[in-house]
Amino acid sequence: MDPVTRRRGTLVVVSAPSGAGKTTLCTEVRAMVPGLAYSVSVTTRPPRPGEVDGKDFHFVSEATFKAMRERNEFAEWAVVHDNFYGTRAEPLEQALAAGLDVLLDIDTQGARQLRTRYLEAISVFIVAPSLALLEQRLKERKSDAPQEIARRIARARQEIAAWREYDYLIINRELKEAVDQLANIIQAERCRTSRLGLRLPDLTLPE
Amino acid sequence: MDPVTRRRGTLVVVSAPSGAGKTTLCTEVRAMVPGLAYSVSVTTRPPRPGEVDGKDFHFVSEATFKAMRERNEFAEWAVVHDNFYGTRAEPLEQALAAGLDVLLDIDTQGARQLRTRYLEAISVFIVAPSLALLEQRLKERKSDAPQEIARRIARARQEIAAWREYDYLIINRELKEAVDQLANIIQAERCRTSRLGLRLPDLTLPE
Repeated sequence: MDPVTRRRGTLVVVSAPSGAGKTTLCTEVRAMVPGLAYSVSVTTRPPRPGEVDGKDFHFVSEATFKAMRERNEFAEWAVVHDNFYGTRAEPLEQALAAGLDVLLDIDTQGARQLRTRYLEAISVFIVAPSLALLEQRLKERKSDAPQEIARRIARARQEIAAWREYDYLIINRELKEAVDQLANIIQAERCRTSRLGLRLPDLTLPE
Repeated sequence: MDPVTRRRGTLVVVSAPSGAGKTTLCTEVRAMVPGLAYSVSVTTRPPRPGEVDGKDFHFVSEATFKAMRERNEFAEWAVVHDNFYGTRAEPLEQALAAGLDVLLDIDTQGARQLRTRYLEAISVFIVAPSLALLEQRLKERKSDAPQEIARRIARARQEIAAWREYDYLIINRELKEAVDQLANIIQAERCRTSRLGLRLPDLTLPE
């Protein structure tokens, strides 16, 4: 817990359609905001070039994922593009109890589950300024085949419809500006009275 | 209105017991955050040295204040230390309709009235780290007589009890940090989905 406010950490759920720049944005914000932990998701999807097991994702087989699910180890899980994704509940709980805010990068299905489980979570939706730009970014990434890009764009159209379910919206026009906005949101939530302890010891006690 | 989001401005209500550093903080934040208007209060209190009519306050007689009140010109008004303070509704409405966020520096009574009238307002409470420090700051200010300082401290104790009524709390340990926190809060609220228009034209319309 934070020694001054004795506050529990806040869950910061970030979702975005592919190509909105979410991964880069989350990395930059983690470097910028102190006291922010990152929840590494478990997935059955194969690693992309450069991705490191345990850092970007915990890469597991479908059998392992299903066994973890059977043991109720996930705070949320979802199927996206035929791959399983999940967030382990235990490390999440430990970080929050220690007063750390935890950044989670998950899809709209997982976000819905977490909002139900953690009523105090805040959620942030990140969009590219237009679908055309989103398509361009996916192509520039060169990590996906054309049919995969088409599939991601179709899914993005669907996901974008969910933006109103989120507390905050960031339009990622320019990385620096979007990073600042996400950092602002996390810092501002730390000042929320509803997240603070029951009294201000210095001020409300008689002197 | 903001040309992109067509959003209405947000009312940012800031309250603090005397000596919490509220006035300096608000001045710094206004210089730092673009698109932020400041509502100049009407008061019957005499100007302090250096205060400028129309900039720091609109200084009026008690008769004028009461006539304005009769004509329902105030969005809120209150009596503090035997002086009247009020916020004119019309310029406030105009600024909000134009998409400007408006910073208001008022006491806890006025804040209650504004929260009832403007459900979408956000409110921020600013406190000194301790009552001892608050007393010290009031003495250093040298603008008040000893009995006035005692009265302000007694009132501060009362007002501090209201901190939970506010959305956000800033503990003003160090000016720069507190200014950043208030700026973060205002910027973060601009990303609130509940404050944005009904759709994202670029993204949700078919291409």
